[in-house]
Amino acid sequence: MNLNQLLKLDDRPIILASGSPRRASLFELMGLQFEVQVSDVDENSEEYLVPEVHVLELSYKKASKVAEVSNDGLIVGADTIVVLDDETLGKPSDRKDAHKILRRLSSRTHAVYTGYTIIEKPSGRSTSEYARTEVTFRELTDIEIEAYIATGSPMDKAGAYGIQDHGALFVTKVEGCFYNVMGFPITSFYQTLTRFLGGAARAAGA
Amino acid sequence: MNLNQLLKLDDRPIILASGSPRRASLFELMGLQFEVQVSDVDENSEEYLVPEVHVLELSYKKASKVAEVSNDGLIVGADTIVVLDDETLGKPSDRKDAHKILRRLSSRTHAVYTGYTIIEKPSGRSTSEYARTEVTFRELTDIEIEAYIATGSPMDKAGAYGIQDHGALFVTKVEGCFYNVMGFPITSFYQTLTRFLGGAARAAGA
Repeated sequence: MNLNQLLKLDDRPIILASGSPRRASLFELMGLQFEVQVSDVDENSEEYLVPEVHVLELSYKKASKVAEVSNDGLIVGADTIVVLDDETLGKPSDRKDAHKILRRLSSRTHAVYTGYTIIEKPSGRSTSEYARTEVTFRELTDIEIEAYIATGSPMDKAGAYGIQDHGALFVTKVEGCFYNVMGFPITSFYQTLTRFLGGAARAAGA
Repeated sequence: MNLNQLLKLDDRPIILASGSPRRASLFELMGLQFEVQVSDVDENSEEYLVPEVHVLELSYKKASKVAEVSNDGLIVGADTIVVLDDETLGKPSDRKDAHKILRRLSSRTHAVYTGYTIIEKPSGRSTSEYARTEVTFRELTDIEIEAYIATGSPMDKAGAYGIQDHGALFVTKVEGCFYNVMGFPITSFYQTLTRFLGGAARAAGA
């Protein structure tokens, strides 16, 4: 299935402004043909009090950094965070931190937020949206946490787990978009993109 | 991560009594080493009025068929159905039927049930459990449905979609275990298996 054809994108490039291999695999799952251009936005330069603002602003920053050097196409930025008790849990700093994060998530429900921004070039039109999903963990044993950390998977992930790898066995329940937890809410994005392209067609008198 | 070691299964074989490539991939995701032995149970031989009974009974039938010819190990059977308005939607009979099913699922919430049974040989001990997940579809256009059917994916799947392929773009919300919708509720299974093995250890005086 070729989503570029279905959406009549013709030869307008889609540029994913993210180095996350999980986001790239989700773009492939959607059937999108795209390129990757990683933006060098510092994710830790600011403190945000509101998760929605956090992910929307960072997704916009990432997209606009890449849009600055793009002449044509649709540039997509995204940012994902994990929130527990109003505290944002980022990527673990080391194995000990990963253990601490997973211990905190054990037997609890946390929220995953992903914000994304689409910027159209050369027009400069843009749209930003976010998705929120609740994830419930079962009680984890120290042996399970250590065995998971030993796989190396937690280290590059917000919240120190991947729901698409062995971390899946920690989760008893998801409420909302599953793929949001992987780093990109594909159905929300598809709907937003369809509306965004429709708006462009109307703006062009089509 | 090797789940057989973590669960101290030693060299007891795990036998998946299912030909579903999605279930096999979920056993791999769990980190289980296993063999596949497909049972030849006729899935349509009986009508069940209650979805829980449907998936529990069929999962037991599938596991016991393979257990009959196994001397040793843990045999796992499973069955998944999609239920909308108290009606069970099976695999589509042809492309037209797939279109009809997807049209019915459009803009609605349906339930996915998976039952599974573990039988231990040679003891004959067994346990059966099920999981239920609610899945909400956005409104689908005929073009989207036809493009998806053209991929061939709907034909071997209950409810005529796969949440792990392009069908993911139809889903706005999941409530419950995501992997249940793929055909096997891995966290529920892991917890049941742990209890089941603990019970065996106690029975053996360990």
